[in-house]
Amino acid sequence: MNIIEGGVCAAKGFLANGIHCGIRKNKEKKDLALIYSKAKANAASVYTTNKVKGAPLTVTKNNISDGYAQAVICNSGNANTCNANGIEIAEKMCELLASELKIDKSDVVVASTGVIGQPLDITPIRDGIGALVNGLSSENSKLAAEGIMTTDTRLKELSLSFEIGGKECKIGGIAKGSGMIHPNMATMLVFITTDCNISTAMLQKALSTDIQNTFNMVSVDGDTSTNDMVTILANGMAGNEEITSEGEDFDKFMKALNTLTVYLCRKIAGDGEGATKLLECEVDGAKDEENAKIIAKSVICSSLVKSAMFGSDANWGRVLCAIGYSGAQVDVNKVFVSFKSEKGEISVCENGAGVDFSEEKAKEILLQDEITIKIVLGDGNARATAWGCDLTYDYVKINGDYRT
Amino acid sequence: MNIIEGGVCAAKGFLANGIHCGIRKNKEKKDLALIYSKAKANAASVYTTNKVKGAPLTVTKNNISDGYAQAVICNSGNANTCNANGIEIAEKMCELLASELKIDKSDVVVASTGVIGQPLDITPIRDGIGALVNGLSSENSKLAAEGIMTTDTRLKELSLSFEIGGKECKIGGIAKGSGMIHPNMATMLVFITTDCNISTAMLQKALSTDIQNTFNMVSVDGDTSTNDMVTILANGMAGNEEITSEGEDFDKFMKALNTLTVYLCRKIAGDGEGATKLLECEVDGAKDEENAKIIAKSVICSSLVKSAMFGSDANWGRVLCAIGYSGAQVDVNKVFVSFKSEKGEISVCENGAGVDFSEEKAKEILLQDEITIKIVLGDGNARATAWGCDLTYDYVKINGDYRT
Repeated sequence: MNIIEGGVCAAKGFLANGIHCGIRKNKEKKDLALIYSKAKANAASVYTTNKVKGAPLTVTKNNISDGYAQAVICNSGNANTCNANGIEIAEKMCELLASELKIDKSDVVVASTGVIGQPLDITPIRDGIGALVNGLSSENSKLAAEGIMTTDTRLKELSLSFEIGGKECKIGGIAKGSGMIHPNMATMLVFITTDCNISTAMLQKALSTDIQNTFNMVSVDGDTSTNDMVTILANGMAGNEEITSEGEDFDKFMKALNTLTVYLCRKIAGDGEGATKLLECEVDGAKDEENAKIIAKSVICSSLVKSAMFGSDANWGRVLCAIGYSGAQVDVNKVFVSFKSEKGEISVCENGAGVDFSEEKAKEILLQDEITIKIVLGDGNARATAWGCDLTYDYVKINGDYRT
Repeated sequence: MNIIEGGVCAAKGFLANGIHCGIRKNKEKKDLALIYSKAKANAASVYTTNKVKGAPLTVTKNNISDGYAQAVICNSGNANTCNANGIEIAEKMCELLASELKIDKSDVVVASTGVIGQPLDITPIRDGIGALVNGLSSENSKLAAEGIMTTDTRLKELSLSFEIGGKECKIGGIAKGSGMIHPNMATMLVFITTDCNISTAMLQKALSTDIQNTFNMVSVDGDTSTNDMVTILANGMAGNEEITSEGEDFDKFMKALNTLTVYLCRKIAGDGEGATKLLECEVDGAKDEENAKIIAKSVICSSLVKSAMFGSDANWGRVLCAIGYSGAQVDVNKVFVSFKSEKGEISVCENGAGVDFSEEKAKEILLQDEITIKIVLGDGNARATAWGCDLTYDYVKINGDYRT
């Protein structure tokens, strides 16, 4: 498996574009993104479990219920959620795009991200759709990645090549993260494209399995968004024999997908709203995977742990506290905790109690951009990893006045 | 029922004191508190559900297992949790106090609050115990209230008089809140005294029932502390006929207790770490009380709602979002939301969708110190209230460097 250029256009037959059409006031910010597959693609998707769902999710779910899609349109700046005419607007977006691309409107995946509860005006989208489609190119994945950003500070994109049955396959993805990020099915916007030939059923299976250990293990702020979805399009143009069941080929596909999604998870967590640091919580020695996950997520979600990490303070008592209230089955007297970064690793707690450690060394480790909180339990052999970020002044600043 | 002076010394036979003994470096801050009842009192307590429990909780639980206590000792500045010798130190605190007061060491309630995982030195406590006991007075409730404060900025104390069977009874309490506050059994330190004559069993019943709608409905930061407990001592000196079963007298006692605990909840929430505002979330029209509580707590815990309230931004979409991911059974298309303060009330969402409202008026309402987020559902008649606070720069500042 190799990292390659191209993002969502790396796979054969995919084009993309991103423009500023006028939904956002700031003309420097793109607000409309498009991904298009020359061939009709098998499509799979997962959605937020929030009961308040963005109208685009309902329309998308309906559109891909036949297993196919050919284009993804996504605007930023407005979530089109909690609006009386939300469904109508989301459908209109599909119609406008389908008419311009000359495809079936039921082959459009539609998504929106931004503020909730403000009507989304179709005018800028209608006016911009021509330019959006005209600019489609295999070079423009980065423009699409920009078009879906909200408070993200960095573009999130990766593509990989891998081989199945002697054929080179490619997979790529773009993601939007930042705020309202909390594990519950899918918790962000992610669009993935691949030319691998894989049935809709196996594509859905791959995605639904993968997110359990990837996107579901990311939390920025504990708020599960109303508009999250992860969608994958597979157009089969790599020419491999169609993957229709589990086996070696499916495993290879899963591995490529997982490499991509773990990368995007880390990027989303590290670029959480206001974040200065990526936090990774590795739990090992758990009774079972479920308990390992509960603990990893509890630690990564703790406001007190997050604040301590912002201050590069080795306050491991808060890690123990978060393990204790996680609800997991755990023997707290057998817990080991260490902090790790590229500057080394330091043990701070053994068998549930503090150990002497160099505060100076701990500070040096915790001043880095990527911190691993390593927890070893004495309950079994299961493990899990969760990703998050520190809690900073800027998170409060960004969210104290996001809407106005 | 009347509000009276005296705090935990309002009830007959109770004395208190608080001193600086040297656990905390800052000599301006008291760090050791004592409450003493002249007569042996019936005692009831609830404790944190965190699996990582402070050593003092284990010792207290054991001490009051016979239903009696006569004194409460509590230090701040160190939680005596996750220490290898924690139990030994907590027991030593009881012994030192019992010896000075000439009471049985198993009649001491012991508590600690502060940083987790640093050994608690018994020396300053041993050295200070004489002065602590010598200063006992019915005038010193406020000193005890100060002695249990950590990052609290305001002392929390109230006392009430009420009447049972022609006898005047009194009840009073002090509380410590601020950080690591999240609903799960008891989520702070609260010590309550009363001279009402009530059996241990009914006292425990009253407390365990009351906290379901009071202390369990408070959240500052979603972190459930390791050291939380609410303890009540009833010494019977009011001379009313002992309450040994449910009935009119028990109801009167419950009402007085509830008035006290709701007051303390609001004080704890409003003085949450870094908070500038008390947030109250009132839910009505829920299917049942359980669902009303889930929704009220979800809204009060949302970092995004809390940040918006800090910015006085009427971002009601985040309220809808938090209702949606709460896990409660709710028809999101029937949700009404309004914001309320002493400056008035403004409706922002009806039937799950936004309504036109004056941003200016909303701002005026949200700039106040006490904000009510009012949610009316269309699912039934059940209601619940939760208390929290806004998320501010200062929360991050306080917790980015708490330990060092």
